Amino acid sequence: MCVLHLLLLALLLQSSSPSSPPPPPSYVPTVASKKLKQTLPTPSNTSAPSSPVFLSSPLGRSILTTPHRTLPCTILTPSPYTLTKTSLTKPQLSTILNCPLRDFRPLDSKYTSSTLLLSRPLGVILKLGSTRAIIKRCEPSTKNRELMIFECDSIQDVQEWLYENSEIQNLRILESLLSTGLHSLYTRYKKISNALKPLLPLQHKGLNGAESLSLLLPLKNDLDSLSKLLRDVENCLLEVLREDVGSLCGSLGDTREQDLEEMMDDIVQQVEELRLKVDTRREEVRNSEEVLEIELSLVRNRILRFELGLGVAEICLGFAAAVTGFFGMNLLSGWEEGGGIFWGVGGGLVVIMAGMAGIMSWKMKLDAMI
Amino acid sequence: MCVLHLLLLALLLQSSSPSSPPPPPSYVPTVASKKLKQTLPTPSNTSAPSSPVFLSSPLGRSILTTPHRTLPCTILTPSPYTLTKTSLTKPQLSTILNCPLRDFRPLDSKYTSSTLLLSRPLGVILKLGSTRAIIKRCEPSTKNRELMIFECDSIQDVQEWLYENSEIQNLRILESLLSTGLHSLYTRYKKISNALKPLLPLQHKGLNGAESLSLLLPLKNDLDSLSKLLRDVENCLLEVLREDVGSLCGSLGDTREQDLEEMMDDIVQQVEELRLKVDTRREEVRNSEEVLEIELSLVRNRILRFELGLGVAEICLGFAAAVTGFFGMNLLSGWEEGGGIFWGVGGGLVVIMAGMAGIMSWKMKLDAMI
Amino acid sequence: MCVLHLLLLALLLQSSSPSSPPPPPSYVPTVASKKLKQTLPTPSNTSAPSSPVFLSSPLGRSILTTPHRTLPCTILTPSPYTLTKTSLTKPQLSTILNCPLRDFRPLDSKYTSSTLLLSRPLGVILKLGSTRAIIKRCEPSTKNRELMIFECDSIQDVQEWLYENSEIQNLRILESLLSTGLHSLYTRYKKISNALKPLLPLQHKGLNGAESLSLLLPLKNDLDSLSKLLRDVENCLLEVLREDVGSLCGSLGDTREQDLEEMMDDIVQQVEELRLKVDTRREEVRNSEEVLEIELSLVRNRILRFELGLGVAEICLGFAAAVTGFFGMNLLSGWEEGGGIFWGVGGGLVVIMAGMAGIMSWKMKLDAMI
Amino acid sequence: MCVLHLLLLALLLQSSSPSSPPPPPSYVPTVASKKLKQTLPTPSNTSAPSSPVFLSSPLGRSILTTPHRTLPCTILTPSPYTLTKTSLTKPQLSTILNCPLRDFRPLDSKYTSSTLLLSRPLGVILKLGSTRAIIKRCEPSTKNRELMIFECDSIQDVQEWLYENSEIQNLRILESLLSTGLHSLYTRYKKISNALKPLLPLQHKGLNGAESLSLLLPLKNDLDSLSKLLRDVENCLLEVLREDVGSLCGSLGDTREQDLEEMMDDIVQQVEELRLKVDTRREEVRNSEEVLEIELSLVRNRILRFELGLGVAEICLGFAAAVTGFFGMNLLSGWEEGGGIFWGVGGGLVVIMAGMAGIMSWKMKLDAMI
Amino acid sequence: MCVLHLLLLALLLQSSSPSSPPPPPSYVPTVASKKLKQTLPTPSNTSAPSSPVFLSSPLGRSILTTPHRTLPCTILTPSPYTLTKTSLTKPQLSTILNCPLRDFRPLDSKYTSSTLLLSRPLGVILKLGSTRAIIKRCEPSTKNRELMIFECDSIQDVQEWLYENSEIQNLRILESLLSTGLHSLYTRYKKISNALKPLLPLQHKGLNGAESLSLLLPLKNDLDSLSKLLRDVENCLLEVLREDVGSLCGSLGDTREQDLEEMMDDIVQQVEELRLKVDTRREEVRNSEEVLEIELSLVRNRILRFELGLGVAEICLGFAAAVTGFFGMNLLSGWEEGGGIFWGVGGGLVVIMAGMAGIMSWKMKLDAMI
Repeated sequence: MCVLHLLLLALLLQSSSPSSPPPPPSYVPTVASKKLKQTLPTPSNTSAPSSPVFLSSPLGRSILTTPHRTLPCTILTPSPYTLTKTSLTKPQLSTILNCPLRDFRPLDSKYTSSTLLLSRPLGVILKLGSTRAIIKRCEPSTKNRELMIFECDSIQDVQEWLYENSEIQNLRILESLLSTGLHSLYTRYKKISNALKPLLPLQHKGLNGAESLSLLLPLKNDLDSLSKLLRDVENCLLEVLREDVGSLCGSLGDTREQDLEEMMDDIVQQVEELRLKVDTRREEVRNSEEVLEIELSLVRNRILRFELGLGVAEICLGFAAAVTGFFGMNLLSGWEEGGGIFWGVGGGLVVIMAGMAGIMSWKMKLDAMI
Repeated sequence: MCVLHLLLLALLLQSSSPSSPPPPPSYVPTVASKKLKQTLPTPSNTSAPSSPVFLSSPLGRSILTTPHRTLPCTILTPSPYTLTKTSLTKPQLSTILNCPLRDFRPLDSKYTSSTLLLSRPLGVILKLGSTRAIIKRCEPSTKNRELMIFECDSIQDVQEWLYENSEIQNLRILESLLSTGLHSLYTRYKKISNALKPLLPLQHKGLNGAESLSLLLPLKNDLDSLSKLLRDVENCLLEVLREDVGSLCGSLGDTREQDLEEMMDDIVQQVEELRLKVDTRREEVRNSEEVLEIELSLVRNRILRFELGLGVAEICLGFAAAVTGFFGMNLLSGWEEGGGIFWGVGGGLVVIMAGMAGIMSWKMKLDAMI
Repeated sequence: MCVLHLLLLALLLQSSSPSSPPPPPSYVPTVASKKLKQTLPTPSNTSAPSSPVFLSSPLGRSILTTPHRTLPCTILTPSPYTLTKTSLTKPQLSTILNCPLRDFRPLDSKYTSSTLLLSRPLGVILKLGSTRAIIKRCEPSTKNRELMIFECDSIQDVQEWLYENSEIQNLRILESLLSTGLHSLYTRYKKISNALKPLLPLQHKGLNGAESLSLLLPLKNDLDSLSKLLRDVENCLLEVLREDVGSLCGSLGDTREQDLEEMMDDIVQQVEELRLKVDTRREEVRNSEEVLEIELSLVRNRILRFELGLGVAEICLGFAAAVTGFFGMNLLSGWEEGGGIFWGVGGGLVVIMAGMAGIMSWKMKLDAMI
Repeated sequence: MCVLHLLLLALLLQSSSPSSPPPPPSYVPTVASKKLKQTLPTPSNTSAPSSPVFLSSPLGRSILTTPHRTLPCTILTPSPYTLTKTSLTKPQLSTILNCPLRDFRPLDSKYTSSTLLLSRPLGVILKLGSTRAIIKRCEPSTKNRELMIFECDSIQDVQEWLYENSEIQNLRILESLLSTGLHSLYTRYKKISNALKPLLPLQHKGLNGAESLSLLLPLKNDLDSLSKLLRDVENCLLEVLREDVGSLCGSLGDTREQDLEEMMDDIVQQVEELRLKVDTRREEVRNSEEVLEIELSLVRNRILRFELGLGVAEICLGFAAAVTGFFGMNLLSGWEEGGGIFWGVGGGLVVIMAGMAGIMSWKMKLDAMI
Repeated sequence: MCVLHLLLLALLLQSSSPSSPPPPPSYVPTVASKKLKQTLPTPSNTSAPSSPVFLSSPLGRSILTTPHRTLPCTILTPSPYTLTKTSLTKPQLSTILNCPLRDFRPLDSKYTSSTLLLSRPLGVILKLGSTRAIIKRCEPSTKNRELMIFECDSIQDVQEWLYENSEIQNLRILESLLSTGLHSLYTRYKKISNALKPLLPLQHKGLNGAESLSLLLPLKNDLDSLSKLLRDVENCLLEVLREDVGSLCGSLGDTREQDLEEMMDDIVQQVEELRLKVDTRREEVRNSEEVLEIELSLVRNRILRFELGLGVAEICLGFAAAVTGFFGMNLLSGWEEGGGIFWGVGGGLVVIMAGMAGIMSWKMKLDAMI
């Protein structure tokens, strides 16, 4: 076991008195150095150093990063296989990996940080989907490997897999972590996709607005944020692939740069495939909505056209009602006794009504309404 | 025949005892090395090594890549022309090409991977559209060529063409494969385009929502996913063209870098042309929809304007009906006997109705409704 | 005249027996080499070598490129000025310029290839808009220039211009070709723009959907495809400008790199200006459509509001009609003889109708409908 | 204290006679040099040199930048901790930092400049969100630090924090400033997000257009401008990260380039996370609007369909009214005395009405309206 | 004065006989060389050489660039301050700056070229917004400066400013020109913004479509084209900043590269700020439109819902009218004399009407219409 690992165990057991201090880092974390000078009177000082003064400060996350918070952690060493469940604070991690506190923010589940793959001199810090972990650097002399998992959807499987492949390289460990993180995104896509399937294509008959559409809205929101997340993952990995492969290689310790590049290439390819699927699904939703809009518009126009016909008929009947009502008034017109007048008015009405309907239909045809 | 080809045949015949092992690769595939140590009791062990333990693991595709699955494969050697139909597993391919298992994922038709053109030291792995193939590296000493086709729409044509051009270079083989893959995308475009032609331009009269629009929706979805696919193909090829021409050249073995670049340039140009066509078609659909929306809106407003006129007429007639009904009541008004009152009421009604229509028309004109 | 030019003339006259074969190219075109071995029995073999076997093959355009097709061509030499009208096949061009067949695809008017500016060792192949041409390299020793025009909108002008400027440099020839191609795009823009002018701004009154909108749709489609084409032209030229100026310079033969760069810069600037114009026009169409949509919506709401008023009036009148009809029934109510009842019912009706209208107006105001 | 700091104090106290002039800068600021030659007669000349001639000039901001305006400023030195409240003009700043006047435009709260991080030889000028400050360069010899804050949302906290960390590095000061600026943007996001929460998802029932939507509009505008601002911040920081880390390092004076890069990386990551959140919120609003539009459309169609049924009923009743009115006319039809005619007409009407309703329903079903 | 300046004056006075010809440029402008050979008989030959043959040629702008057109020009020399108003042709400019004709196209106000900042060996050609000018190179030996302004919105101010700052550097002259050009764009933005203010937020009540919306359309178009123009300006300046600072520096003659870079940086920053403002304004217009659309939709649905209620009432009243009309027919029903039948029918009608209204309301509630 390397010195740093010993140091870690010491920290976990005693948490206060590191026997052999690490070589003085060039960038001294402020919080850690400050704690040495002040002895806080808080009772919870022994197990995990908390400095509540930082909580009240509005100076932003990057400096203060809540160092008192303990992160539950599973430490795995593949060769020989050991498993330790513990919890660490950011200053402890800072001492182990010799990084500033802010580098450990992605590991804190309180923050919704997006994808990160940080290459640090003593290890790699990873956050992808719901996987948060640290891979310690494998020193060529000791060949000791160590993996700290802070959050992982399928941690059981990773443990079994490491148990079975105890002679694994750090590259394979990284690959398994990336795959696991990607798998959690894939699961999320699958869930959305399955929920969408009965809704598409949106149909204007079966749809009763209140229900189906209230189902559609959260799915659309999910799909959009998943798409954004995948784009973010892809950009992050591509950036590492383009600029940082060398330092990532150094951080893993026992990996050839070409192998790492091929592995990253493959992961990026899988992310792209997933993104393609998600975007295809989004397009389907959008297309379905657009076509539904047109369909509703078409049906609406057809209804209006039919109503127009009804309106014309109504006018004609209204005219007949007015005329017959006119002759129905209890007033003397002088025509009351004429025998044929009754039928003459009737016939005249029918002719006039037919004429009105004809003229209006002609006008509507002229204006391309029907 | 080169040593690797011999090795392949040996693998196919015996599948268990490689006489001359390949030089130890730097990146030992986990699965292959693991199999040597454990003797699985499964009966199907002899022909194709299956390791079902990987199936139950959720660790993602990039590590486990279902090594037990056999990929049907057609092996072609142009000089002299031979054709062998067989099936290979990923560990076998891994031994032949000395690559990690994950590199062969694009060849597996179970995965919907997008475009890939992987340059590996011993060959080129290609996936474009529905073409999945491997071109083995041509060693300058032996001049042996070998092409493995796993899936291809026009495999018959490729075979004939290779038969006729038996002194072909690897560059030409790659070009023919890319062209064939592109051709399958072109065929797909053609099919969508033909199905779209009778639908465009969308017209509000002939359209009966239920039918035409239910035809339009899948076509729009297809067009969108084809456009995305082509963009993906273009990006993939451009990336190879920009960064990887050298290593692709090395993987082919007998090609000048400049020739390869010109060939790739030409293929990219063809992809661009196809994409331009697809996007033009998408724009046409979108424009047609937009114009249809406006047209429907216009027709709707015209109908409403006409209905407004009907409404005004209806009000006037309704007023007449109410008044005549009023005088038709079986109640004594005292006017029953007046001779001219009948015609007076009639004339008054007509005047009032004309006035109402006039006032309402003026109001509508004022508000720019008609 | 250089050797290659002699060769070209020989090919044109005899088309079969090249006396001095070109130096063996590194990339032997398959079709040409194949023809040497097999003597096809087709009768059309002498003038233009056709190989119909390629037509039936689905192997894509990049390999087979229909070598039998003859391209009508105008060959111009500025110093001294000569003009030859002839037609060439791709294998002939391949022999002259020592390029693979596929490089001549842009010259074939059967293919809708987008912009291309290929630098080949012995010349430049150009396709921009409707201009397709080859500029042969000017060897410093012979100072012979040669321009092959395959398609050009204003070929007459180019001929005159070359006649007048017989001591022209290849750079100026290229510039004139690019300008001519760009001019054809500008003409296309002008035509669309003129057709759009009477339609914009779209107005809901003058518009009768069937006519104006059926004019708008093809113009929108044209504008979109022109915009895409210009973007393509710009990208193509920019790419040459960024990466290929050196080799383009070499292909022209007698041009300083800086002059070429300034010329390309200027052409790109002109393309950008044109694209800016096209996009501005597209935006205008889109804005006009959006505003028209809102205007139609506004008018529709105003109409509906007016109809609401009509509806209220109708209800009141309908109520009156029902009540008066009630009293008009040929049934005995016992009120028939009461003198004042007639006027009482009349007055009551008016009061009730006014009350109904008031309540409904108040309700509509409350809900912000009017 | 370094010479420049002395100079600053001298300027603040006397503001007119710098005893030891700075070494002649290569780029002499015009305004400063001009002032030496002319003695302006304005009375406000002593405390802050104002040159109103610049105000009337339309020559743009970059040259004239209103040098007479005084910027209130808080000067902090961490070691030992001092705090001075004063106000400076741009020419004074120009003399202190030896930069042209225009570099201090971002510090002027009158200008709505977006993000800036300028590396100047003697210090760093920063503008992010509502934080405007200058970090003076820390000379390795003197180790004097100085921070000038012109505007800051949480200036109290910065002061306290500096007081507690008096041995701070310039890198940490820069980090705290960036964090504070970012925090102000986060606060702004939080405020918008909270105001949006009760509005989403937009529902067509509870919504009374006049109120909720007039709340929605400014929130949408805010969200859009915040998104644009964040994109701007990200681009600005990324550009510094990619190209300017070296010179920024030099401007800080006591920082290792790698530490600076890691710090910037982390800030960019935080900006990205915030932007992701803002964009997610925008998408939610857009999705909610789209779904609301569809929902309204659906409800509208359902209403229209119901009205169609009402219209059919109305026509039937109107027909009955016309027919009964016809028989109610005070004219002699000759049928008055027939006993069964009354019931015959009644029955006939019902049959005809049922037939009309049936035919119209069939027609509507045929056209897929109901 | 330098030789070239003398040459310019000579050209302006005599315009035909340059005494000391410039050193033969590598890129001989065709037009100029052609003029030497032919003596055109046109009378306007002496002052400005016009060659109308170019006008009829369709060969595009880049070659022929209408050399006969005279450009009105103001020549300013700061030290000592002189001002000459004159007019130049492109061939004259070509002789002075030793550039091909096409470089002077941006100076021609007939062309709507977008932004340009051309670095030529003997000077800088600038076009930004409505500012078109040339800054002559300042030879280190002579220190002569010269500025030619072809178009400028605030030329008066530039003159005064140069008069007051006669010892100005070329860098400051360039900065003032860029600022002036930018100021003209800012003025344009301000004008649009002020015109937009009374229109936003679009409100459905105060809006009478014909007026407000016809005001909105040109403003939207202006805003869009201004945004595109600013994007173009930014890209142009950024490109110079990234690639061409060195040669721009050389073209100015007396400027340090770092100063130039800082100045350009600041100008780009101002362009970005302005673009941010313009885009924010565009977003506001778009958001306002979207919200108005939704508001109109909401109001429409509410109106329809109210009309639905009216429709239900109408049906009930229509039913009553039909029934009472039925009993009003002049036919014998046999019920005429029954005393209570009158009131029975009345009561029955009310009950039936209430029932109909109830059933329809229940149905509407069921379908979520009200």
